[in-house]
Amino acid sequence: MLPQFRVSLDEAVMVQEDNLRGTVTPIFERMGVPPEDAQLAADVLLQADLRGVDTHGVSNMLRSYVSGYQSGQINPRPDWKIVRETPGTANIDSDRGLGVIVTPKAMEIAIEKAKVVGLGMVTIGNARHLGMASYHAMLALKHDMIGTCMTSCPPSVLPTFGAEPRLGTNPIAVAVPARNEPPFVFDAATSTVAGNKIGIARRLGIMMEPGWLADNEGNPLMEEVDPADREAQGYSLLPLGSTRELGSHKGYGLSCVVDILAGVLTGVGYGAVPGRPNFGHYVAAASRARLPRNSPGLLGASRH
Amino acid sequence: MLPQFRVSLDEAVMVQEDNLRGTVTPIFERMGVPPEDAQLAADVLLQADLRGVDTHGVSNMLRSYVSGYQSGQINPRPDWKIVRETPGTANIDSDRGLGVIVTPKAMEIAIEKAKVVGLGMVTIGNARHLGMASYHAMLALKHDMIGTCMTSCPPSVLPTFGAEPRLGTNPIAVAVPARNEPPFVFDAATSTVAGNKIGIARRLGIMMEPGWLADNEGNPLMEEVDPADREAQGYSLLPLGSTRELGSHKGYGLSCVVDILAGVLTGVGYGAVPGRPNFGHYVAAASRARLPRNSPGLLGASRH
Repeated sequence: MLPQFRVSLDEAVMVQEDNLRGTVTPIFERMGVPPEDAQLAADVLLQADLRGVDTHGVSNMLRSYVSGYQSGQINPRPDWKIVRETPGTANIDSDRGLGVIVTPKAMEIAIEKAKVVGLGMVTIGNARHLGMASYHAMLALKHDMIGTCMTSCPPSVLPTFGAEPRLGTNPIAVAVPARNEPPFVFDAATSTVAGNKIGIARRLGIMMEPGWLADNEGNPLMEEVDPADREAQGYSLLPLGSTRELGSHKGYGLSCVVDILAGVLTGVGYGAVPGRPNFGHYVAAASRARLPRNSPGLLGASRH
Repeated sequence: MLPQFRVSLDEAVMVQEDNLRGTVTPIFERMGVPPEDAQLAADVLLQADLRGVDTHGVSNMLRSYVSGYQSGQINPRPDWKIVRETPGTANIDSDRGLGVIVTPKAMEIAIEKAKVVGLGMVTIGNARHLGMASYHAMLALKHDMIGTCMTSCPPSVLPTFGAEPRLGTNPIAVAVPARNEPPFVFDAATSTVAGNKIGIARRLGIMMEPGWLADNEGNPLMEEVDPADREAQGYSLLPLGSTRELGSHKGYGLSCVVDILAGVLTGVGYGAVPGRPNFGHYVAAASRARLPRNSPGLLGASRH
């Protein structure tokens, strides 16, 4: 984390994990979420805080989930189901369930598939906010598998040379077990910064770095930006790479890949329409191939 | 392509595809490559030129392949084989075969697996240069599948805050069929620029952009750089994002993901050792789930 985003210790209010969990779980229950799902949702938010991912923890996300439940945009008891399937893949219609709760269940399906055929990939459409993407990817670790998670979010990011947002911050998370070492865990938006950083910057009263935002005409702002001023004037996020010369077409292209895998592939309830509450999610798991080296392989043939 | 990288029409020597193919194929045969493999290798190089990917076409790559065959680093008749396998995955030992030739065969294995279980993923270790990554990803398109290809290359890219290269340019390619529209094809290095751009810039006598290179101490060079001067003084490539503030930790992390999937997972003959000729490759294919929507699904259960 950049040092300016750290909350100083004399301003910070320290809260113990158990106390926070004991507060958050009943809030989800009060929204009509079944007790087991409420515990799961609280765990996803708590894990974000415990990992230092303030953008996706209790203080930054819970309020918007409560609003979503209260307005009816999020369904507290979704009748989610598998709508298409192969031995290695499945598409889920999430029935407007919170991604925070449905996605871990989708990941368990991907893991079960990976146990059988080596790989599992599940998309979740008609969905709502995912929470911290790496939570779902990391579920694969205890099965000694590699986990991946992506989410296609509502548009806030400009394509290279564009003036209107057409892409979400569309993060990619990958978790890889490392035997006796801590696992490798990657989790990053394909925009230069996560969207939630702007709200945090405004609350902390700090400036945004050059290359993070563009003005309303799509011009990258290559100087420091006051987030409060910018919110008044309007802005969009830039893809990773910031400008064409620095490679923003690569961040833009990666974001399109996430949109296809986590959005278009879900086939239900997705559309790149600003203001729409839809999200699409993607999870995958890959297991270790168990055959000893130099065996002839399951398929027999070793050459074409 | 940035305009300064375009060869001007009055300097360009135009060559017809068939003539070039008729020249390149016998050069591979002369290196001891079997005729069918020589045709395949020529096709991979030609497709790069036809798609405008000068970095991976005949003029930029063939010379290094010939040197590799002549020095014995590349095996013209590799005895490649599957060393581990599940229904959805396989690991191949490439026996020092050119990735240009072995990877399309690995992709055909991934496609066959995807026909059966919905997904196929194959890693290729103990390998040599891949050629244009999107060639292999695009092989999935004619089967109406999504294709992916990545390659773990010898170190030339700095980790964020690092002074020594520890990562390759490690590109990611994804090809997605789009029914009656041209397919979506993404293919980009996870460094700010592909390594071969520097050689091309030197030949064309053009400057490198700010944020592409770092000096020998690992400081990002945020001004224009003369590639000839810089080659004399030494340099490394920067990950996508260029600096910590602009998000180079994201490009670095994505490059690590490629290194794990295409390098570490191959389990044979990979090591991040500068100057070593090894490469590791990764291909994957995903097929369409054929079940109609709202069917109960192959696994039966629709909820947990």
